[in-house]
Amino acid sequence: MALPKRVVIEEDSPRDGFQIEPRPIPTEEKIAFIDQLSETGVAEIQCTAFVHPKRVPQMADAEAVMAGIRRRPGVRYTAIAPNLKGAERALAAGVDKLIVFLSATESHNRANVQMSREESLRGFEPVVRLARDRGVPVRGSISCSFGCRFEGRVPADEVVRLARAYWDMGVQEVNLSDTTGMGNPVLVGDVVARVMAALPRTTISIHLHNTTNTGFANAYAALQAGAIHFSGSVGGLGGCPFAPKATGNIPTEDLVHMFEEMGVQTGVDLERLIECARLAERIVGRELPGQVMKAGVNWRLVSLEEWQRGCRP
Amino acid sequence: MALPKRVVIEEDSPRDGFQIEPRPIPTEEKIAFIDQLSETGVAEIQCTAFVHPKRVPQMADAEAVMAGIRRRPGVRYTAIAPNLKGAERALAAGVDKLIVFLSATESHNRANVQMSREESLRGFEPVVRLARDRGVPVRGSISCSFGCRFEGRVPADEVVRLARAYWDMGVQEVNLSDTTGMGNPVLVGDVVARVMAALPRTTISIHLHNTTNTGFANAYAALQAGAIHFSGSVGGLGGCPFAPKATGNIPTEDLVHMFEEMGVQTGVDLERLIECARLAERIVGRELPGQVMKAGVNWRLVSLEEWQRGCRP
Repeated sequence: MALPKRVVIEEDSPRDGFQIEPRPIPTEEKIAFIDQLSETGVAEIQCTAFVHPKRVPQMADAEAVMAGIRRRPGVRYTAIAPNLKGAERALAAGVDKLIVFLSATESHNRANVQMSREESLRGFEPVVRLARDRGVPVRGSISCSFGCRFEGRVPADEVVRLARAYWDMGVQEVNLSDTTGMGNPVLVGDVVARVMAALPRTTISIHLHNTTNTGFANAYAALQAGAIHFSGSVGGLGGCPFAPKATGNIPTEDLVHMFEEMGVQTGVDLERLIECARLAERIVGRELPGQVMKAGVNWRLVSLEEWQRGCRP
Repeated sequence: MALPKRVVIEEDSPRDGFQIEPRPIPTEEKIAFIDQLSETGVAEIQCTAFVHPKRVPQMADAEAVMAGIRRRPGVRYTAIAPNLKGAERALAAGVDKLIVFLSATESHNRANVQMSREESLRGFEPVVRLARDRGVPVRGSISCSFGCRFEGRVPADEVVRLARAYWDMGVQEVNLSDTTGMGNPVLVGDVVARVMAALPRTTISIHLHNTTNTGFANAYAALQAGAIHFSGSVGGLGGCPFAPKATGNIPTEDLVHMFEEMGVQTGVDLERLIECARLAERIVGRELPGQVMKAGVNWRLVSLEEWQRGCRP
């Protein structure tokens, strides 16, 4: 089975991580963090969300973040915009891509945005039109594509149906998100393959969580199915760790490490990305679940003396 | 690609976990722990190591452990025996399978057992003969099959050569172990396929670590290559976490959860296995890295109220 030779790596921590931090992160720290991420070789950075500041106070500085960052040529700076008002703000702030989202299941969509999925889709139509008028691409994201904590298994046909609805509306990209980390590699491979077959001219991007330790197996399965756009969050910051001590997003640096070891090029400077994961730990003031930053990269070999100071299996 | 429908699950924590605990675990706690593992449906339990008590004091009670456990029919109780003296002790204690081991690389073998690999192999010959005379099968294990912290990449041909050497000697099973967690799914799939092709009549068992977060992707790749015997350690206990805060063994319960979700039968009662992981945490007195025991199994759905007490992505 031939795997893709190159993948696109997207970093979501400035939005998906900082959004749920109990202590709002100061704007200048966000800007410095995004600027450091820009130097790692990631292709895309999800910077913020243009949502109502009362609903998500952590993202109230969306305009200031977008205005403050130093844009590196070749890196796309994206943001979430859940509705027309948010889209207008995001486009005024100069985002390179707009992100809208709904859930694969009715109950999760209602819990998350207090609307039916059809209401969500109708609300996106003017957003996509506006973005097209301004020449900005839109990602339609499908949360809970691989399972829902309310409803359990999600029918693959339902994910395909929603992906088609996005396509019919005119989005340039559909994102399949494992919002609660319920995916397994057989399911992820199957759903990704079906969506790609249904929408052969659309970019399919993949957002995975490592909640039950399947995130990297799922990434491998998605890659085998032909996906080439993957996002993560440095250190594993954020991404709805819904149970105490549970983890959320896959650590981007661990994903890059795995891909590079497999011979799949990411274009990312891993040492720099690990530095960003360490910076994320300092910003949020706690240890993050990323493992490569603890164990070290595979290509760092050790001496016998170092080894003997550790364990001997 | 057709995956195996059923896998054999082996639990290694009583040996691979307790062996490196700084505080030796009391014999009666080990026995009670193994007895509880026997009730989970795992097919095989690696109970102890018949090694020199001065070299590994944590395993000095090997005979007492084997004599004290309640043997459940259908479960195999195995132990490590690095040499003829150990093998005699293990056979006298009534193990169901003997385990010998060497490393795929010369430098790791010398660091681990102070011998060349050829010296290791010659030393196993009388062990295998003795075990055969007693009608007890032998596993030949190859540490660092997917990478070595001293030498880096390990040539697949070298792993095949050592597997053949075990086969020529008369072992019934060859184990490929990712001792330092350096495997990636492309490499693991390739090496497993090559060893299985070279030794079509031998059981190939797989022992993986999650050191850089690739353990579950590697398990999926090994399964795709046709492997059906996998071991782990409940909670992720043990398995040479050679760097501070690095993890070692893959948590068995997370592996079982992934396989069952994929539709691959394990024969394991996951709730009972998770109870063993919690018991392991109490025995060693610290939190272990297993994730399913923190996040909950996928088939436990939550209500909107529970959800709202958590986060809303």
